[in-house]
Amino acid sequence: MIPDHDTIVAPATAAGGAIAVVRVSGREALALCDRIFRGRRPLTEADGYTVHYGEIMDDDRIVDDVLATVFRAPHSYTGEDSVEISCHGSSYIVSEILRLLTAAGGRMAQPGEFTIRAYLAGKLDLSQAEAVADTIAASSRAAHALASTQMRGGYSDELEQLRDKLLHLTSLLELELDFSEEEVEFADRTTLRETMQRIGREIDRLRNSFSLGNAIKEGVAVAIAGAPNVGKSTLLNRLLNEERAMVSEIAGTTRDVIEERANIGGVLFRFLDTAGIRSTDDRLERMGIERTMESIRRAQIVIHMIDATLPEISCKPDFTLRPDQQLLTVANKIDKAPATLTLPENAIGISAKQGTGLDRLYDALHGAIDTEALYHGDPVVSNNRHYEALTTAREALDRALEGLGNDLPTDLLSEDIRQVIHHLGSITARGAIAPDEVLQNIFSKFCIGK
Amino acid sequence: MIPDHDTIVAPATAAGGAIAVVRVSGREALALCDRIFRGRRPLTEADGYTVHYGEIMDDDRIVDDVLATVFRAPHSYTGEDSVEISCHGSSYIVSEILRLLTAAGGRMAQPGEFTIRAYLAGKLDLSQAEAVADTIAASSRAAHALASTQMRGGYSDELEQLRDKLLHLTSLLELELDFSEEEVEFADRTTLRETMQRIGREIDRLRNSFSLGNAIKEGVAVAIAGAPNVGKSTLLNRLLNEERAMVSEIAGTTRDVIEERANIGGVLFRFLDTAGIRSTDDRLERMGIERTMESIRRAQIVIHMIDATLPEISCKPDFTLRPDQQLLTVANKIDKAPATLTLPENAIGISAKQGTGLDRLYDALHGAIDTEALYHGDPVVSNNRHYEALTTAREALDRALEGLGNDLPTDLLSEDIRQVIHHLGSITARGAIAPDEVLQNIFSKFCIGK
Repeated sequence: MIPDHDTIVAPATAAGGAIAVVRVSGREALALCDRIFRGRRPLTEADGYTVHYGEIMDDDRIVDDVLATVFRAPHSYTGEDSVEISCHGSSYIVSEILRLLTAAGGRMAQPGEFTIRAYLAGKLDLSQAEAVADTIAASSRAAHALASTQMRGGYSDELEQLRDKLLHLTSLLELELDFSEEEVEFADRTTLRETMQRIGREIDRLRNSFSLGNAIKEGVAVAIAGAPNVGKSTLLNRLLNEERAMVSEIAGTTRDVIEERANIGGVLFRFLDTAGIRSTDDRLERMGIERTMESIRRAQIVIHMIDATLPEISCKPDFTLRPDQQLLTVANKIDKAPATLTLPENAIGISAKQGTGLDRLYDALHGAIDTEALYHGDPVVSNNRHYEALTTAREALDRALEGLGNDLPTDLLSEDIRQVIHHLGSITARGAIAPDEVLQNIFSKFCIGK
Repeated sequence: MIPDHDTIVAPATAAGGAIAVVRVSGREALALCDRIFRGRRPLTEADGYTVHYGEIMDDDRIVDDVLATVFRAPHSYTGEDSVEISCHGSSYIVSEILRLLTAAGGRMAQPGEFTIRAYLAGKLDLSQAEAVADTIAASSRAAHALASTQMRGGYSDELEQLRDKLLHLTSLLELELDFSEEEVEFADRTTLRETMQRIGREIDRLRNSFSLGNAIKEGVAVAIAGAPNVGKSTLLNRLLNEERAMVSEIAGTTRDVIEERANIGGVLFRFLDTAGIRSTDDRLERMGIERTMESIRRAQIVIHMIDATLPEISCKPDFTLRPDQQLLTVANKIDKAPATLTLPENAIGISAKQGTGLDRLYDALHGAIDTEALYHGDPVVSNNRHYEALTTAREALDRALEGLGNDLPTDLLSEDIRQVIHHLGSITARGAIAPDEVLQNIFSKFCIGK
């Protein structure tokens, strides 16, 4: 991960398409490619943002007809001279081009090494660089919006504003230290407290967004729970549009928790079909119910399913939820329910078997997570590293606020605020180079060629 | 497959890489992209072979930062105005870009539709277009050389030369028809016969190359045969570098034929591990031996394996081969053979278990197929359609030669030669548009985006 001046090469596309792209970046990128590229003129003489038709040569053997796109420093992804070679999408041809480029002096890139170089060149801050990997992995509209806002720096800007406010405060505090003999107060303590409290609320808002951000990135966990035989597995199959879970008339058909993902209206949900909850002497069934309870604890949303055909419908679930969890009551089998049926208030009537009433359920699922802000580009935290940094920053801020109440000496107060600044700054690492182990940790999760 | 003037769009790369490329081609390609691309200036104003940084917009939502490469007719793959949009390698982003492009007036391309357009624009002949798909599918150096020669038109040129000679002959013959009352002979019958025989030999040479070409494309079939317990499965595992086939001390361990591919020195081989051949009353084992015999019939090369530790080594196999099949005799277990062992002439001594002697076996496998010509760009037929056309051409040529011997009237003779010309011409379809069902058949096997 230590920055060097090697020219790095890597495939940038997956195997199996009509075309494939090989990326080359570094001081020698153009000269390196010229050693194996035979076009109308050398790439070293080409302008940036131009494309050149030619052949990749292995001595006098033509390996492939390619298009070489030239980027000139600093106007490239990495900020270095770069070439993208677009060839036929054969894994043999790609491996030959990589072999020839490394033989000519290139080095195979590490995962994420192109993006590290972009970060080191100041093209992206650390949070934006992390969002590049999230953008590639995004498989739903919501996850894409999340990564996209972060990659575009909207999120970094918010953090920078918090930091700037704190920097202003500390500089005033530290100015007092220079005049410490004179007992002046440049930073009005009331204003100071108010500003710190406002910053605390903003940090809290970002920290609170993490449950949404993380859920959207990993999939919103939805447990389907209820008494045996209310149709939980039938609903799962309906949501997935496939016969995933085994369904029968026999109560207790589902034993283990089944987890499946489905993209509904642009949000990825992870549905957990669980064993029906009831008192039982069957040891295996009891184990299944324990797992159900565990799934309910892990879920952001719990669908409590009840049977609309039963004479007496109880909406009271056999489990309790935390305040941060959402409950949706769903009355199933409305197609078989008596015409006189009055659904309990707030219950959504569906027939999982017939597929009726599902639109209301989809709306309720979306209503339970607030994606609107996301689509408007509001900053949402989805990264564990950022959440931890925000938490540590909040702890330092609490210490500073406590110190302020206790008339802590200005130098110690200033030190606590410096801690807040440091942790907020570690998220974007703008204007500073993040420690090597942080870079290692972040970029090793990238794919090759990015 | 009927050519139209739609602007077609398709993903050109497989899902899963750091970047993905979407292709757009047609009269409206640039204007279409401008509807969703926001760069420094419109692509309609851009020169060919230039690259433009910008954003793909869904109304006011940014879908991705992309690079758009502009190609101007006729200097593009299809010969039409084209754009290649290089975006982040997320399947969500690719599907969004395709959705926006089709909403803006593009049509999703059929498999191979870009290459059809290249063919219709005269950028490639039919045989070269077919080689594009083979180039992408090539997984070994030999298969790549095969497709590469064909794609570069070396093969088409050879066929065109044959056709030109025949065209010259028929024009002389048909000139005679114009002067038929005068009994002139513009085409000297002896020269005519000699030329036709020479062309026949050249067609035969191409037809004979088919067994090599087809073998290289599909993998050269090598049956590993011999008595039970000589170590056939051990050799297969050694060749594959994995424990694919079940191995035991018990004679008759292998029952069904196991087929596996391995790339050895740039050539793809299909190894068929077979049941040991012996007289047996076991019904299942007898069925296995029948399958062994079938595998031997299907193989281009048969490795006849013998046990070097047996007191009396017989090189005579329990099967017979056709003249077009190659036999390699391999004496296994030389590590356990007595020091006084004299191997039969031509036998290759190996120890499959220890991995000794394999280099000689690899050389022998390569020696059994003549790839040298291939690497020098000699035309080799690998396509069934071409082989059939050559066969039909040869039949018509035989009729013409017979007619020449029987003093067939010139108009009938000329008709047979026209048939030869027609069938040779159908391979490249240069200067003519192939029938729709031929195009359908060829291009439906292409991948999307090519």
